[in-house]
Amino acid sequence: MHDITVNFFKEDDYSCDILIEGLPGVGQVGKLVAEHIIEELDAEKIAEIHSIFFPPQVLIDDLGITRLPNNEIYRYKGENLKIMFLVGDFQSSSPEGHYLLTDTYLNIAEKLGVKKIYTLGGYGVGHLIEDIRVLAAVNDEKLKEEVESAGAVFTNGEPGGGIIGTSGLLLGMGKNRDIDGICLMGETSGYLVDPKSSNCVLKVLSNLIGVEVDATKLKERADEMEHFVEKVKASEKASSEEELNYIG
Amino acid sequence: MHDITVNFFKEDDYSCDILIEGLPGVGQVGKLVAEHIIEELDAEKIAEIHSIFFPPQVLIDDLGITRLPNNEIYRYKGENLKIMFLVGDFQSSSPEGHYLLTDTYLNIAEKLGVKKIYTLGGYGVGHLIEDIRVLAAVNDEKLKEEVESAGAVFTNGEPGGGIIGTSGLLLGMGKNRDIDGICLMGETSGYLVDPKSSNCVLKVLSNLIGVEVDATKLKERADEMEHFVEKVKASEKASSEEELNYIG
Amino acid sequence: MHDITVNFFKEDDYSCDILIEGLPGVGQVGKLVAEHIIEELDAEKIAEIHSIFFPPQVLIDDLGITRLPNNEIYRYKGENLKIMFLVGDFQSSSPEGHYLLTDTYLNIAEKLGVKKIYTLGGYGVGHLIEDIRVLAAVNDEKLKEEVESAGAVFTNGEPGGGIIGTSGLLLGMGKNRDIDGICLMGETSGYLVDPKSSNCVLKVLSNLIGVEVDATKLKERADEMEHFVEKVKASEKASSEEELNYIG
Amino acid sequence: MHDITVNFFKEDDYSCDILIEGLPGVGQVGKLVAEHIIEELDAEKIAEIHSIFFPPQVLIDDLGITRLPNNEIYRYKGENLKIMFLVGDFQSSSPEGHYLLTDTYLNIAEKLGVKKIYTLGGYGVGHLIEDIRVLAAVNDEKLKEEVESAGAVFTNGEPGGGIIGTSGLLLGMGKNRDIDGICLMGETSGYLVDPKSSNCVLKVLSNLIGVEVDATKLKERADEMEHFVEKVKASEKASSEEELNYIG
Repeated sequence: MHDITVNFFKEDDYSCDILIEGLPGVGQVGKLVAEHIIEELDAEKIAEIHSIFFPPQVLIDDLGITRLPNNEIYRYKGENLKIMFLVGDFQSSSPEGHYLLTDTYLNIAEKLGVKKIYTLGGYGVGHLIEDIRVLAAVNDEKLKEEVESAGAVFTNGEPGGGIIGTSGLLLGMGKNRDIDGICLMGETSGYLVDPKSSNCVLKVLSNLIGVEVDATKLKERADEMEHFVEKVKASEKASSEEELNYIG
Repeated sequence: MHDITVNFFKEDDYSCDILIEGLPGVGQVGKLVAEHIIEELDAEKIAEIHSIFFPPQVLIDDLGITRLPNNEIYRYKGENLKIMFLVGDFQSSSPEGHYLLTDTYLNIAEKLGVKKIYTLGGYGVGHLIEDIRVLAAVNDEKLKEEVESAGAVFTNGEPGGGIIGTSGLLLGMGKNRDIDGICLMGETSGYLVDPKSSNCVLKVLSNLIGVEVDATKLKERADEMEHFVEKVKASEKASSEEELNYIG
Repeated sequence: MHDITVNFFKEDDYSCDILIEGLPGVGQVGKLVAEHIIEELDAEKIAEIHSIFFPPQVLIDDLGITRLPNNEIYRYKGENLKIMFLVGDFQSSSPEGHYLLTDTYLNIAEKLGVKKIYTLGGYGVGHLIEDIRVLAAVNDEKLKEEVESAGAVFTNGEPGGGIIGTSGLLLGMGKNRDIDGICLMGETSGYLVDPKSSNCVLKVLSNLIGVEVDATKLKERADEMEHFVEKVKASEKASSEEELNYIG
Repeated sequence: MHDITVNFFKEDDYSCDILIEGLPGVGQVGKLVAEHIIEELDAEKIAEIHSIFFPPQVLIDDLGITRLPNNEIYRYKGENLKIMFLVGDFQSSSPEGHYLLTDTYLNIAEKLGVKKIYTLGGYGVGHLIEDIRVLAAVNDEKLKEEVESAGAVFTNGEPGGGIIGTSGLLLGMGKNRDIDGICLMGETSGYLVDPKSSNCVLKVLSNLIGVEVDATKLKERADEMEHFVEKVKASEKASSEEELNYIG
């Protein structure tokens, strides 16, 4: 048994121009964006990755059918752009596994001809947030201008602790292979799944790659979450007023 | 020294039709079932598995004799059905070890000709429970009907976190080897060893494999545990009434 | 660099009849016994073991000189008995390392011709204790009689959790190599280094191996520790009486 | 992918006489000293070390450019002394990695001809401290005299727990390669980055290696930190007096 197994469903010319990564993370921001684009563009699943570095369990779908946790490669072949997507259930459960898995992702990306990587994630700020900024980091200074033009911001020293996990390593280890890398991080509370933040990241990403993606479904999910948060806030306000009545 | 060592006691034709797994887990539900069947059917121990992925210790029996923790393979040869059993002291102490051990179990199962795997466990609900359901998950949709006919239920999204450990991985990794897999999980509080839940799992399993197993001993253990719980409840009630007397 | 390195200081015929192990553990009971015998019998250090499984640090002696943590092999050549000793600074810092290190110890023991292993440790009971029993476990039933004759006891199911670490694994893994194994565990509080418990273990061990070892130094250390404990008790009694005076 | 990758920027004769190590640690004392000397002597960066044993992330600079965490080798070629420096972002995230990384550092040092190693660190005392001592440990007794002459002290049994991490292992594992090793540890509270302690270590080190290093910048940082601490103390005193006023 290999530590990491990559299984392409068929042999084919799967050349790609760019890689978009959206694995699970803070607020599931990156995951929501990548999975939304895959659905809207009707991208094709071309490979699965299994590994002893994922948690030792199976997942169960609504029908009661089990499957191993995995990471998946999708591919979209547009007229002007061919995209490789990396999404999945988990990131590595060990520090060393993060490095070894990312090395495998980059082997695949290189094989498919990827020249540029976009990694997507959330940036937890610890409180609910109105005006969501999309923070950016790049692995080469030449990339800054296009990223800023697309609507993301570079802030001095944020995130202070760096970018943890695959989103970070793809840029760092991609640099050693001369692959350009851009990380987009939507601000988010960090407490909830955040489709609103995802929508902001999607806008910047669309600008960057020049592909229009219908955001309706993501906006609907964002509205639902907004209503949910409003209801929770209202109910909290009600209880605290009630408490005041007791006191008064 | 190998990370995992499998030691068959003798060379023989140990062909088996199915594998029943009952390693330690929530409420020891699966372990009790598998060990009960092994005892009732007088199955033969045919192999032992040692591994650096088990906790680094020895166990001591009532006579003061030590032995390494292990997993054990038993075999029952009935007229119509030959069963391989997987039981033991521990599951892996590391995430990676879970994958590597399960890979070894499947190597053995394939070698013996196993076509179907039944993994047994408990599903902790966090409170004492009267009407115990047996939840099921399968690694192929075609298996659902027989499982439901046998008395288990598929509930939408339970267990939500998936199935952790060997019981899960045998289904997930078995799928990749075209081995059918059924997991049966008896509801249990999660606080106590639960022979009553085991008895419910045993019934469903007996229906599925078409083998009658005398459940008397398991029922006796369940009754003992029931009495123990009743006594604890009564004593708790007594103390709380006493407290009320003090107050009153 | 190897994960484990064994360095014999010179080539020689280091044949040994038995192995006595006293690595660090509960109350340092085993360590004190083994190191005491080494000193009294003036055993010779014949090898050092280094490993990446020991904690990543150096130790500093009273002069300020550093050295890597290690395990050490000593040898005593008596007229009737040749003894291999295993002592050292640490046990493994990972579960897997425990297995791999013990495998190495057994390779050495086998090479030197060891036929019997005595592992020494403490059994933490959680409170100060007057009449110290020496509990025993063996890896073969035939060894029980001599162990009981020598003054140790087998108690039904103690220690309940088995024997953790090298003291346990040497018996379990030694069994697979047909090496007899006896573990002696002196009862101890578990809070303090316990030379008194070590002295009890020493007596039983001396009976077993038929070697007289002057226990004076160990008794002196036990007396010192006894006085220390008495002083702490007295001071605690004084403070609690004082408190009563304040209240009274 | 290798567990550890060493990348020299060009092939050259990089022979060195000594190695100065200042990786992150208590109070960043060693890191500040080594980086200060590198800057003052205008040492040249000659190699980078990447490893799966470093935390799985990238770091972001002030411009928003990412880079993998690494350890770096610098070199200074003076008239009488050629120095190899080891500095970097992190130490290993696993115990085993510490050993394997240090083995790699020593391979490089040996290749460059290093005969003596100076490792620099802080010694946390748990409280703010006025008169900072520089404690020392050496891997060979013959080194004590020069270290004491240079102003460091050997104290009986400090640090009691030994020297954790690369600073310790370079001495312990260097000894096995016949490389002399001296560890200098500046006393520090352990709560703050401590350039004042670094300055004390720098003085001792300068005496030892016979190289004058302008300490102005380090002193300025120490003064800033001193003012910061004074302000915090004053503000604490003010608040506690205010509290007294309330009470009074």
